[in-house]
Amino acid sequence: MNNESNSILDKINSPDDLKKFSVRELEALGAEIRNELISVVSRNGGHLAPNLGIVELTIALHYVFQSPSDKIIWDVGHQAYVHKILTGRKEFFKTLRKAGGCAGFPMRDESPHDPFGTGHAGTAISAALGMAAARDNKGENYKIVAVVGDGSLNCGISLEGLNNISEVTKDFIVILNDNKMSISKNVGAIPQYLNRLISGKSYNRFKAFTKMMLKRVPHGDEISQTISNLGEATKGLFVPGVFFEELGLRYIGPVQGHNLPELIRTLDGVKDSQKPVIIHVLTEKGCGYFHAEAQPEKFHGISKFDPCTGDGYGPEKISFSSAFGQTMLEIAEKHHNAVAISAAMRSGTGLLEFSEKFPDRFYDVGIAEEHAAIFAAGLAAEGVIPFTAIYSTFLNRALDCIYHDVCLQNLPVVFCCDRSGIVEDGPTHHGIHDVAFLRVMPNICIMYPKDETELRNMLYTAVELKKPVVIKYPRGGTGRKFLKDLAPEFLAEGRAEIVKNGSDLSIWASGAEVWTAMKIAEILYRSYSIEASVVNMCFLKPFDSDMLRKMALSAPLVTLEDAHVSGGLAVTVDEILINEPHKKIMHFGWNDVIVPHGEMENLRLSGGMDVESLVLKIVNGLKGS
Amino acid sequence: MNNESNSILDKINSPDDLKKFSVRELEALGAEIRNELISVVSRNGGHLAPNLGIVELTIALHYVFQSPSDKIIWDVGHQAYVHKILTGRKEFFKTLRKAGGCAGFPMRDESPHDPFGTGHAGTAISAALGMAAARDNKGENYKIVAVVGDGSLNCGISLEGLNNISEVTKDFIVILNDNKMSISKNVGAIPQYLNRLISGKSYNRFKAFTKMMLKRVPHGDEISQTISNLGEATKGLFVPGVFFEELGLRYIGPVQGHNLPELIRTLDGVKDSQKPVIIHVLTEKGCGYFHAEAQPEKFHGISKFDPCTGDGYGPEKISFSSAFGQTMLEIAEKHHNAVAISAAMRSGTGLLEFSEKFPDRFYDVGIAEEHAAIFAAGLAAEGVIPFTAIYSTFLNRALDCIYHDVCLQNLPVVFCCDRSGIVEDGPTHHGIHDVAFLRVMPNICIMYPKDETELRNMLYTAVELKKPVVIKYPRGGTGRKFLKDLAPEFLAEGRAEIVKNGSDLSIWASGAEVWTAMKIAEILYRSYSIEASVVNMCFLKPFDSDMLRKMALSAPLVTLEDAHVSGGLAVTVDEILINEPHKKIMHFGWNDVIVPHGEMENLRLSGGMDVESLVLKIVNGLKGS
Repeated sequence: MNNESNSILDKINSPDDLKKFSVRELEALGAEIRNELISVVSRNGGHLAPNLGIVELTIALHYVFQSPSDKIIWDVGHQAYVHKILTGRKEFFKTLRKAGGCAGFPMRDESPHDPFGTGHAGTAISAALGMAAARDNKGENYKIVAVVGDGSLNCGISLEGLNNISEVTKDFIVILNDNKMSISKNVGAIPQYLNRLISGKSYNRFKAFTKMMLKRVPHGDEISQTISNLGEATKGLFVPGVFFEELGLRYIGPVQGHNLPELIRTLDGVKDSQKPVIIHVLTEKGCGYFHAEAQPEKFHGISKFDPCTGDGYGPEKISFSSAFGQTMLEIAEKHHNAVAISAAMRSGTGLLEFSEKFPDRFYDVGIAEEHAAIFAAGLAAEGVIPFTAIYSTFLNRALDCIYHDVCLQNLPVVFCCDRSGIVEDGPTHHGIHDVAFLRVMPNICIMYPKDETELRNMLYTAVELKKPVVIKYPRGGTGRKFLKDLAPEFLAEGRAEIVKNGSDLSIWASGAEVWTAMKIAEILYRSYSIEASVVNMCFLKPFDSDMLRKMALSAPLVTLEDAHVSGGLAVTVDEILINEPHKKIMHFGWNDVIVPHGEMENLRLSGGMDVESLVLKIVNGLKGS
Repeated sequence: MNNESNSILDKINSPDDLKKFSVRELEALGAEIRNELISVVSRNGGHLAPNLGIVELTIALHYVFQSPSDKIIWDVGHQAYVHKILTGRKEFFKTLRKAGGCAGFPMRDESPHDPFGTGHAGTAISAALGMAAARDNKGENYKIVAVVGDGSLNCGISLEGLNNISEVTKDFIVILNDNKMSISKNVGAIPQYLNRLISGKSYNRFKAFTKMMLKRVPHGDEISQTISNLGEATKGLFVPGVFFEELGLRYIGPVQGHNLPELIRTLDGVKDSQKPVIIHVLTEKGCGYFHAEAQPEKFHGISKFDPCTGDGYGPEKISFSSAFGQTMLEIAEKHHNAVAISAAMRSGTGLLEFSEKFPDRFYDVGIAEEHAAIFAAGLAAEGVIPFTAIYSTFLNRALDCIYHDVCLQNLPVVFCCDRSGIVEDGPTHHGIHDVAFLRVMPNICIMYPKDETELRNMLYTAVELKKPVVIKYPRGGTGRKFLKDLAPEFLAEGRAEIVKNGSDLSIWASGAEVWTAMKIAEILYRSYSIEASVVNMCFLKPFDSDMLRKMALSAPLVTLEDAHVSGGLAVTVDEILINEPHKKIMHFGWNDVIVPHGEMENLRLSGGMDVESLVLKIVNGLKGS
């Protein structure tokens, strides 16, 4: 389509080019961008629905403001695809999420139009406010716009930022992109408040209603006049955005987010406001693509799919997340005091069915990981067993609460830490750092299941342990059969498991890396006649020091983990063995460099974490030992 | 005074005893409690002003509610002294903050009246809400009260909690203890809003005013009636707590917090509310003690003092915090793009003078460490150099932001991490865990100054490094002369410093532990003729591996750090040496047990971190090597 001569998108190589077109032409551009979004995301996977919803808003922002001198900060950067397409990255965008290709999030290194990288929710207001403080301090006067989803407004950081705006600057624009969803449907009092704002209590509607009504009562004009005379005191009556106004912001809205002329008019109107402004824009997630409108949660972030049918490729395989969800259903039946907590990730963490079957025992607290952890601690303090499912990368937000509220008090909260290890999304989302902090927590038990069946056993074991537990498992699954009909097996705390025997070398692996280790062992034997044992670490803490000492004594030892190599298994081993007799020790994991985005195979390849590279490094290492 | 026969406090051994007295007698009890607070804190040190301010509120809570079946959760637990005195710990309270004595914070292990431990700000609403969810799930109906300071309301976690209340339970009471301060004067839009609520816009005052005014205008009665008829729509007109009402809470207040009858009446009135309630109570920090009323910031948390004069003992010594503050004044003069950020700790971090001298370059963002870190990243992205001073224990709140917003983008933010190491306050406040996470951060430089002069050099060095920097230093000072008139020395990144030579042993120490190491070396030489070298680690990352390898080759090596022994220096050394030839390695720091509260000497003694214990352990260790 972009090759047709009447394509507008073809002629857009920078935001300046937008200004050459009429508003009507820009509306047509919106349709072209939607086609491009569907085309690229259906091939590469990515965040579709949020970007379909923000097409007109992005065009309007670049039409009214002057990026890169004006700065636009996109909260949870996955809504920045349209921005990338419009800021000179139209062709590059076709390489979305490929190794070496276009990142799925804004990145300072990628373009001057990305003044701040964003991946986790809730950072945009704080970052933009810091930039505004710098601008004011330097005496400059460019514009700074933070575009924030309504889901991010639940997040404590956004609220800390909102609280700070009026004290820092007069010149600041927040766009509240309200699609009534974060990933799932939004929860909590703030979204409900936004809904009330939308549902007919806006300034104009209310004023019109009051005037009309007062015309019908005796002395209505005088009443009208009297109310007006009450002045400031009646502000709460007439200003629907009083929540924001009380925070020192001028509230404007709601504005229709797919009405380009209205958006442009509104943005033009506030550009030179001498008071911080929040513009409440209503958008529809998935707008303009039937399948995404119908199933916005499915199309929020999606793997490759058929753009005509909206269907994905291949059958749904069992994953750690789904095994977790299925086991939670069983545990809830057996333990009536078990509940589940999610931080706006009901579906991604595998808890959809649980939330439907046990609505009174399911808590979605919104994008609020700190609150989730402390809320869980409160539940545990009163004898309830909370299973708190949070992705590793987002658990980083709650580390202090895991220490201060859970571990210090030895409360039996079970953290089900999904997406542990690297992920396609890239540096903002790799789950490879949290364990560095977690392993120095008091009272904690940290487990890694080698497969979905062991995850089930670990969940049952966690119930019995009655202490803080973290169970860490990666995205996707092992492809092994999920034996969910077996009687659950309770693991002995702190015991490692020998998966395969061999006397030339032992490979200690964490979680699903056990299967990488098995492949390595297979090649080592086949190609080099090296017989390796493979040990499933099971517990990082407490750790099976006895078995480690014994094995390290007799043969070289390799550790393999899908985590930062200075944070978990490797340093645990070094600590134990530093003064003990041992043969050569080799550590493999993610080194102290930033792991980029891209297909998992490519990331492993470039990080030397593919089976072939690992075999070579081990064989070379053994030569020197 | 408590020995007099007419003492009421003498007769209070549990909250039930309170109910035997008249309200007038309980007012007299308040005076007795204030004397006791002043008496104990002047001897032991502690948080005085917050507790003086909350005497009547605590009495009223225990008069109206039935602890421990009803649960009272005290946010930032340092306001719980009166609660401890009233809940059977009157005598134990005299041992406040002593090793083995009464903790300065609520502790589940200390009393059934402490249902949840609190130390860091902003956790009470989330914890109490979790407890309410558990109660509702179990079908029980006791009451749960979260007492939250206005300073904590800035904190994102509190706001995440507030957002979640109306969705979780109908039966929940938040007490907003508003003394217009956190530690310093409160900042941000929410406190300003609370001030507007207080300053004459409360429901009753406003209604009275409106009625009075309408009586004077023609048809006033009809107007009054019409406004009433508008019903729900005029809620914003008549309810001053609309901010909270919009969050689904019933707002009541402001209530005078030193008027016991009014407090009791109010609490009685809401006890059985079928909607979550927030009661806005006005208190005065330091109330009833002249010196604390006059200087509430000084008396917030204080060391021993003379109760008559309010003066502390001994001259103020130079501390790391004050050296930091003084150096910041210099740096601000030399670097016009340098700014300082505090999270409600202007005075504690040493930035008071900076904030007065450079008000436009000082940002106190309130109790909001996550926002502080991202705000700093925003400043750095625009070419400003932000020095962000946060206590180690609170930096744990911002770990994700340090990764996601600062380190990933390699932004030159300088984190000045005060109170690194153990502190008297106890487990919630020890600064010994953060580095475990920080050392796996990309791009980061982590420094430890051995004394105040080196801190100054490191701050100057940080300006030149142009990358993320963390400088970690403990509470208090070394007692060494602060050489602030020397030309600043720029440190070579990643270089360790040999402070003393010796060939029998090398002791690698981080920060002020260098002086512990020097004392050890002295005794080793004097008593055992062992000549030890002492190395000032300076940089934890990048680390001086070359010097380490060389030294480990020739003599046994000891590491000494005021941090969790699995998180910092020790594991860094193990990682480097695991496959290298080395003599015996010994690690000293805080082991994987919870370090309690108490005087520093006692904590070091019981943790085996005093000089004598360390010498013995080293000597014994050397025997086996």
